Amino acid sequence: MPVFLNSRDADFAPRFAALLEMKREDAPEVDDIVAGIIADVRKRGDAAVIELTERFDRLSLTPATLAFSPEEIAAAIDEVPAAERDALELAAERIRAYHVRQRPEDARWTDPEGATLGWRWTPVSAAGLYVPGGLASYPSSVLMNAIPAAVAGVERLVMCAPTPGGRVNPLVLLAAHLSGVETVYRIGGAQAVAALAYGTATIAPVDKITGPGNAYVAAAKRRVFGKVGIDMIAGPSEILVIADADNDPDWIAVDLLSQAEHDESAQSILITDDEGFGRAVAAAVDKRLETLERRAIAGASWRDYGAVVTVRDLAEAAELSDRIAPEHLELCVADPEALSARITHAGAIFLGRWTPEAIGDYIGGPNHVLPTARSARFSSGLSVLDFMKRTTLAQMTPAALAAIGPAAETLARSESLEAHGLSVRARLDRLNRTAGDGEGA
Amino acid sequence: MPVFLNSRDADFAPRFAALLEMKREDAPEVDDIVAGIIADVRKRGDAAVIELTERFDRLSLTPATLAFSPEEIAAAIDEVPAAERDALELAAERIRAYHVRQRPEDARWTDPEGATLGWRWTPVSAAGLYVPGGLASYPSSVLMNAIPAAVAGVERLVMCAPTPGGRVNPLVLLAAHLSGVETVYRIGGAQAVAALAYGTATIAPVDKITGPGNAYVAAAKRRVFGKVGIDMIAGPSEILVIADADNDPDWIAVDLLSQAEHDESAQSILITDDEGFGRAVAAAVDKRLETLERRAIAGASWRDYGAVVTVRDLAEAAELSDRIAPEHLELCVADPEALSARITHAGAIFLGRWTPEAIGDYIGGPNHVLPTARSARFSSGLSVLDFMKRTTLAQMTPAALAAIGPAAETLARSESLEAHGLSVRARLDRLNRTAGDGEGA
Repeated sequence: MPVFLNSRDADFAPRFAALLEMKREDAPEVDDIVAGIIADVRKRGDAAVIELTERFDRLSLTPATLAFSPEEIAAAIDEVPAAERDALELAAERIRAYHVRQRPEDARWTDPEGATLGWRWTPVSAAGLYVPGGLASYPSSVLMNAIPAAVAGVERLVMCAPTPGGRVNPLVLLAAHLSGVETVYRIGGAQAVAALAYGTATIAPVDKITGPGNAYVAAAKRRVFGKVGIDMIAGPSEILVIADADNDPDWIAVDLLSQAEHDESAQSILITDDEGFGRAVAAAVDKRLETLERRAIAGASWRDYGAVVTVRDLAEAAELSDRIAPEHLELCVADPEALSARITHAGAIFLGRWTPEAIGDYIGGPNHVLPTARSARFSSGLSVLDFMKRTTLAQMTPAALAAIGPAAETLARSESLEAHGLSVRARLDRLNRTAGDGEGA
Repeated sequence: MPVFLNSRDADFAPRFAALLEMKREDAPEVDDIVAGIIADVRKRGDAAVIELTERFDRLSLTPATLAFSPEEIAAAIDEVPAAERDALELAAERIRAYHVRQRPEDARWTDPEGATLGWRWTPVSAAGLYVPGGLASYPSSVLMNAIPAAVAGVERLVMCAPTPGGRVNPLVLLAAHLSGVETVYRIGGAQAVAALAYGTATIAPVDKITGPGNAYVAAAKRRVFGKVGIDMIAGPSEILVIADADNDPDWIAVDLLSQAEHDESAQSILITDDEGFGRAVAAAVDKRLETLERRAIAGASWRDYGAVVTVRDLAEAAELSDRIAPEHLELCVADPEALSARITHAGAIFLGRWTPEAIGDYIGGPNHVLPTARSARFSSGLSVLDFMKRTTLAQMTPAALAAIGPAAETLARSESLEAHGLSVRARLDRLNRTAGDGEGA
């Protein structure tokens, strides 16, 4: 049974607070193991990666077979049925069209003092994408990670995907191919992250590592952060649906289940202004759970973390939504635009009754890598900007330095940083001497 | 003696690689202590913060005196001499004018299928700025952290600044006042970071923490990352100057020293296409070091980490610069624009002979919080974007869902995520039934 809350109830405040604080993840303590694996890969390179792959993935590799060969990739891609290939191509095209609009603009201007200021964006030179093996090996995630990197202009884009027992998902290789991945290494775990960060004889190091993974991968990403850039470390998925009584309860039920089926730790919450509708949705969830393929997972998630919250009105729904700061937010109401304007913290908003969240997972265009665990309060989904960085630019003229340099000297003195002041003063003295010589500045 | 390298030498490649790999920071192992402090503040709130402040800063506070009162701030600001106030105001104005241009734009469009897509930027609700006590208590850093937050539209902006023995830097309080900081808490260390992240009875929690600090502060920021957002964890400062022989060696010498004086672990590197000029700069550094106030610090930095690299030409200088990926890069050459176009990785570029890096520390306009330790390969200086986040938006029409929904269903099936497909199918079935009824979609 999910939790049923009503904002009119006397104990609503503490119960809602408890919902927010609910801990959904058992992070196993793997940090020491991961530290050992990283040290081993730094020391022994390919040999360590090969040994660890043999141990964890039951797969014998050599330096020459660490990466898939072009022939292996072509053969795997040939296996993909036409319908799936077409769907993946359409998804890639739509994701690319959305992300191309995220390319940031450079700027350059001259201020009244004559200083030229601005900035310039450039891509990261090399990025590595981690793709989990097994159940969570999603071709859609390959597109969502690799396409923003390709759009950013990343020169070298590689991928690590473990193939336990040698099993490969051909759709993952097709997705890599469609999104411009250069090389796919059949390695995983902390050893793959270490190889990407520090490099081996066979695998050149990258500057940025993104992509989901298990606890070992997450711990390894935390450890190499600083040596390379990483994306957010994602927690279990979440959806919040705000729905009025004019929805089909079954539509909302399948929307809630589409997150719940990801993971027993996923969380699906409905906020509605009609308590009876909330009960109808819960009943529809139970009915769908009778036949759903992943009913064991989805049922556990809904039972342990699901919630149905009844509120007085949609304004209250927006307030509660901002406290939840959901990863995914569906607004299944008559005027989704107006409700959306009241929302500040959400990873992605799906407006209106005809926009199920699953559209955003695959084909809408926006990224599906989004901030979880209330981190939408301070962070954003993956974007082209994650694969670029900004260099600031400044150029003084002698006149500009004469205008603003003295203030810099004053501040340097107040911070007891004499050489800072001298670097300005040496130049201003030359200007003064030149002016004294009657030559002007 | 700094290192002297010449790219023509047989052993240049390994010696330059060694320069890149040089470890300049002794990170003391404070993680366990910091974990204990955070746990204590989470458990006992104000009481823990007050006890720790008494122990580490020899300062007795009560919940009522944790923050400076408006009267205390006004009195401190009154102490600031007019010249310093004017300089700080000019700096604040110029930094604001630069950062206002960084405000990102929202986007919204409708694609050929009828799907409306876009994104929206919103500010973080509350941000906390950490300002170190003692020597490194820089008013300029207050401006550089707080103004981007204020420009982003952060609603609640607070600051923590330890005041060991009760000593306050009035300029720091003036800088806070000028940049829109609401409350200044006289606490520091890991306890301040914990209070900002988790909140106490007196200190409301924030969503994002930025600002420099010692090893305890850095370890605490790493630990609270995820609960709140943090900025980069900065290492010791660095400057790379690329200079031809047409510069005054003394100007370049003071530029190099303006980083060296920050910290014994700072690093100053000169790359020049004229070996004799390199020697002249080194001689000028030695001469300046005879009288510099912070000669002990600057001398140690130059001796242990300084380098003078002679290259064949400026194209080679640009290549080496990209391998260094410097925090600060000065281009003291005849055509800085052309050289700048060859550079991909740098936190900030200062163009031409009249733009000493110190201008950027105080008054140029761009931010002085910049990526260190080669992280300019994948990250950027602090900006307005660090205090904002992006929500993606998607809205389907029935026709748009009919056009792209089937591909989402296909992909959901290929990932064995049935409910994802059902959430699309339930809606498409309604459309088909409606169409069958002759009502159209």
